[in-house]
Amino acid sequence: MGENDDSDIIEHHVEEEMEKKSGARSHAPSSSSFPESISPSDREGHSSTQSSHRLLAYSDALISIIATVMILPVAHTKVEDNEELRESVQLLLTTKIAVYLMTFLIVTVAWAAHIRLFQVIVRIDDCLALLNLACMMLITFLPYTFSLMATFPENILGILLFCGCVMVIGVIQALIVVYAFSRPFLLNEQIQISENQSFYKQHILKVIMRVPIMCFFASIFSFIFFQLSYVLLAIVIFLPYISEAVKWCRSKAIGQVEETPDSMLFYTYLPNEPLNKERVEAFSDGVYAIVATLLILDICEDNVPDPAVVQKKYGGSLTAALQDYGPEYLAYFGSFATVGLLWFVHHSLFLHVTKTTRFMGLLNTFSLAFIGGLPLAYQLTHEFPSNSRNELEAIQISCVIIFFAGIFQLAIWVVALYNEHETLHPYVRYGGREHVFMLAKLALYPCVALGTFFLTCILSRFSAQIFHLMEITVPFAFLVLRLLVRIGLALLRLIFCPDRPDPRSVVDEEVDETRVPFNPVVT
Amino acid sequence: MGENDDSDIIEHHVEEEMEKKSGARSHAPSSSSFPESISPSDREGHSSTQSSHRLLAYSDALISIIATVMILPVAHTKVEDNEELRESVQLLLTTKIAVYLMTFLIVTVAWAAHIRLFQVIVRIDDCLALLNLACMMLITFLPYTFSLMATFPENILGILLFCGCVMVIGVIQALIVVYAFSRPFLLNEQIQISENQSFYKQHILKVIMRVPIMCFFASIFSFIFFQLSYVLLAIVIFLPYISEAVKWCRSKAIGQVEETPDSMLFYTYLPNEPLNKERVEAFSDGVYAIVATLLILDICEDNVPDPAVVQKKYGGSLTAALQDYGPEYLAYFGSFATVGLLWFVHHSLFLHVTKTTRFMGLLNTFSLAFIGGLPLAYQLTHEFPSNSRNELEAIQISCVIIFFAGIFQLAIWVVALYNEHETLHPYVRYGGREHVFMLAKLALYPCVALGTFFLTCILSRFSAQIFHLMEITVPFAFLVLRLLVRIGLALLRLIFCPDRPDPRSVVDEEVDETRVPFNPVVT
Repeated sequence: MGENDDSDIIEHHVEEEMEKKSGARSHAPSSSSFPESISPSDREGHSSTQSSHRLLAYSDALISIIATVMILPVAHTKVEDNEELRESVQLLLTTKIAVYLMTFLIVTVAWAAHIRLFQVIVRIDDCLALLNLACMMLITFLPYTFSLMATFPENILGILLFCGCVMVIGVIQALIVVYAFSRPFLLNEQIQISENQSFYKQHILKVIMRVPIMCFFASIFSFIFFQLSYVLLAIVIFLPYISEAVKWCRSKAIGQVEETPDSMLFYTYLPNEPLNKERVEAFSDGVYAIVATLLILDICEDNVPDPAVVQKKYGGSLTAALQDYGPEYLAYFGSFATVGLLWFVHHSLFLHVTKTTRFMGLLNTFSLAFIGGLPLAYQLTHEFPSNSRNELEAIQISCVIIFFAGIFQLAIWVVALYNEHETLHPYVRYGGREHVFMLAKLALYPCVALGTFFLTCILSRFSAQIFHLMEITVPFAFLVLRLLVRIGLALLRLIFCPDRPDPRSVVDEEVDETRVPFNPVVT
Repeated sequence: MGENDDSDIIEHHVEEEMEKKSGARSHAPSSSSFPESISPSDREGHSSTQSSHRLLAYSDALISIIATVMILPVAHTKVEDNEELRESVQLLLTTKIAVYLMTFLIVTVAWAAHIRLFQVIVRIDDCLALLNLACMMLITFLPYTFSLMATFPENILGILLFCGCVMVIGVIQALIVVYAFSRPFLLNEQIQISENQSFYKQHILKVIMRVPIMCFFASIFSFIFFQLSYVLLAIVIFLPYISEAVKWCRSKAIGQVEETPDSMLFYTYLPNEPLNKERVEAFSDGVYAIVATLLILDICEDNVPDPAVVQKKYGGSLTAALQDYGPEYLAYFGSFATVGLLWFVHHSLFLHVTKTTRFMGLLNTFSLAFIGGLPLAYQLTHEFPSNSRNELEAIQISCVIIFFAGIFQLAIWVVALYNEHETLHPYVRYGGREHVFMLAKLALYPCVALGTFFLTCILSRFSAQIFHLMEITVPFAFLVLRLLVRIGLALLRLIFCPDRPDPRSVVDEEVDETRVPFNPVVT
C-alpha cells in the first residue's frame, strides 16, 4: 500500500500543479513564455515535493508588513505646536520619512527578486522552505539597518550591517538556486526539459550575485571613504533600471549587440517582463490590510483612559472622558474607509488585468508607498487644535497623499491600455463595456482629493469640515458610481451629439454609448 | 464587438470558477457536500460578477491582524523589577491578557461566521464588496470595545458599544444575504438550482440574526443589571458549542427529535462541518506573519539610540551603544525563528490535510492564540537582569507558550487521524510513508519546550543559556529531522525486533519499517 500511495501522492501533487497552471493560464493567457503542455519528465523519488503556493503567500505577507511598518516611527513622532522645536522636529520627521521610503523601495526590490527566483523554482521541499525562512528573517531585519544609517549617517556600522545582511541573503539565494538545480524536478518545466541547464544556472547565479558583490565593495569602501558606499548602495537599488537603460541606449546606438537567446528573456529586467499577478495582489493586500489597521493599534493602546484619571478629572463619567478622543475615532473610520476603498479600486482594476508587467509592478509599488503614508496623514489631522495652521497643512498633506495613491493606480491602467491586448481583459479595453466605468472608479479618488485640496485652500476656515465631508461622501459615491457614470455619459452625449436619440431608451444596448472618446471624460 | 466580449467575459469568469472548484476538489475530495457538476443555469446580465477569492483573502488578512494586535498593549506594559508595584502591574497584565484572549476568541468567531456566509455566496459584485468592507471596519473596532470593558468593567458604555457594533454587523450581514438572494447567480450552485431558495434564505437569516438579537437583549439588560449582560455575551460567544451540546444531549436522551433535511447540513455548527481550508491557511499565515514581525517593529522604534546620548554616554561609539541592545536582537531572531518554524510545521501539516473541519479549525485557533503570545514571552525574556527570578519565570512562560502552540498543532493531526480517510492524504495516514516523519515534525517543538522547561527548573542558574541553546539548535534539528527519524526507527527496531535484518540495507523499501506502532514513538 505504501508504494502505491507514494506514486499516488506524486500524481496528486503534479495534478495540482497542472491545474493551478491551467487556472493561471485562463487568468493570464500570456503571463509565461513557457510551453505548459509538457508533463514533468521525472516523477520518481520526489515524495516530499510540495507546491510553493503557500510559502510564497507567507513570504508576501511578511514582506508587505515589513515594507509598511517603518511608517510607525514616523507616525509616532510627536509634533508639538511649538515654533522653537519645530525645525528640529521637522528634520527628524524628514529623516524618518526618508527611512520609510528607502525601506519601502529596498524591500520591494528584494520582493521582486524573490518573485523572479520563484518563477524559476516552482516546487519546493522542506529544505528550500527552511532556506527561504532564513532569507525572510534577514529581509525583515533590513529596516533596522536603515534606521541606523539615517540616524548616524557618518557612522559606518549601519552600512556594514546592511551590506552584511544583503550578502548573507545573496548567499542563501545562491544556495537555493544550487540546491534547486541539483534537484531539477523542483524547477520550471521549461528548464527541466532544457538541455543546457547549467547555462541557466550560471545566468541566474550571475544575476543574483551581482547585488551582494556590489555590497561587498560598498562595505570595503566604507572604511576608506564612506560617501562612496552610499553611492554604491544607491546603484544597487536602481541597478535593474540602470542596466536596462544602458542596454536600451546601447541597442539604440549601435543596434542589437549581443544575441540573447529567446528563452533567456525570463531573467531580465525588461519593463514588460511578466510579474506573477497573484503575488502582486497578495503583496498589495498585505500592505492595504496593515495600513487599514495601523490606526486601531494606536487607538487600542493609547485611547483607553486610566480609571483613576476618569474618576478624578471627569467625576467618573466615562462618556465625558471618551469625548476627548472623538477626533481619533473619526480619523480611524476615515482612514479605514479611504484605505478600504482604495483597495476596492485596486481589486476592481486587477480583476480585469490579465498579465502584470514589471513596469506595472513599479507603479503599483509607488501607489502602495503613498498608501503606507496615509496613517501618518490621518494621525496628523487629529493631532492639532482645530482651525490651526498645522491642521490645515495636515489636511492638505492627506489630500496630496490620497491623490498620488490614486493617480498611480490610474497610471497602472493607462500603462496596461498601451498594450491592452496582452494585459487587459476585453471588458475594460478601449471601447469595452466597462471601460468608462473603470475609468470613473480609478479617477474618483484623485479628483475628489484634488477638489478637496483646492477647496481647503480657498475656504481655509472650513478645512476640517470639508475633509470630513469628503470622508463621508466618497463611500456613497462609489455605491452610486454606476448611476453617475450613466448620467455623465448622457450629459456628454447631450452636449456633443444632441441629435442622437435619448440614451435611456437604449440602456440595454449601451455598447456604442460607452465608446465615447477617452479625453472628454478625463478632463 | 462589445456584445461578444461581454458573453466572453462571463464565460471566462464562470470557467475560472469551475477551474477553482475542480482544483479545490482534487485538494479536498469531500470538503463540500454540493454536487459540482452542475453548470450555472443563469448566465446573462451579470457582467459585474466577480470571483470572491481576493475579497476573502483581504478579509482574512484584516481579521488575522486584528486578532493578533491586542497582544501589543500586553507586551508594552512595563514590568518593573519592583516588589511593591508588582501586584498592581500583575493585575493590569492579567486584565490585558484577558482582553487579548477574549478579542482573539470573538474575532475568530466572527471570522468563522464570515467563512460560513461566503461558502453560500460564492461570487460577489461591487455592492457586496463594499458591504463586506463596512462589516470589516466594524470588526476591526471590536478590540477597542473589549479594552473599554476590561478597564471599566462596571461601566456599561463598553457593553453598549460592543453590542452596537455586533448589531450593526448583523444587520450588514443580513443585508448581504438578502442582496445575494435577490441575485441568485451570486450564490452557491446548490442553492441556485434549489427550488426552495426562500427556505434557505430564512434559515441563514435566522442563524445570522441570533447573535445581534442576543446582543440587543444584553444591551437592554445592561441598564438594569449589567452582570447579566456579561453572562449573555459569554453565551453569544459560546453559542455554537452550547447549541451543539444541547442538540447532542437531546438526541442521546430521546433519540432523533427533529428531522433536518440533509441539504440543511451546510449551515449548522456541527464539529465536522467543513471549513474552507484555503481560508484557514490564509488566516493562519496572517497571524504567523504579524507575530513574526511584531518584535522588529519595537526594535526599529525603540532601539535606535539618540545621537546625543551616544555622544555623551559612549563617547561617540555606536558599537558600544548598540551592545546594550544585544539581548533584544537575540530575542528578535529567536522569536522569528520559532514563529517561522512553527509556521513551517503548520504548513507541512496542512499540505497533507485534505479537508478542514470546524473542530480542527477550533484547535488551530487555540494554537494561534498561543503563538500570538510569543512576542510577549520573548519581550519578557530580555527585559529582566540575567539570572534574576523574573528572567527564569519569563523563560519558563516562553517554554509553556511554545509547548501549547505545538501541542495544539499536534492535536489537529490527531483529530484528523480519527477520520483519516476523509481529512488526510494517504501519505500521512497511519501506515503511510510520511506518517512517522510528520509525527516527529509535530512533536519536535512540544518535546523541546518541555525538555527546556524542566532543565531550567533543575539548572535554574543556567536558564538563559539553555533557552538560547534551544533557539539555536531547533532550526538545525529540523534540517536533520529526516535523518533523526530514520535513526530513531532503526533503534526502535533494534530494541523491539532485534532478529530482523539491518534496516540500512532496506532503506529504499522502508514502507514496512514506518509501520511502527504509534505509541513507542510518542513516548
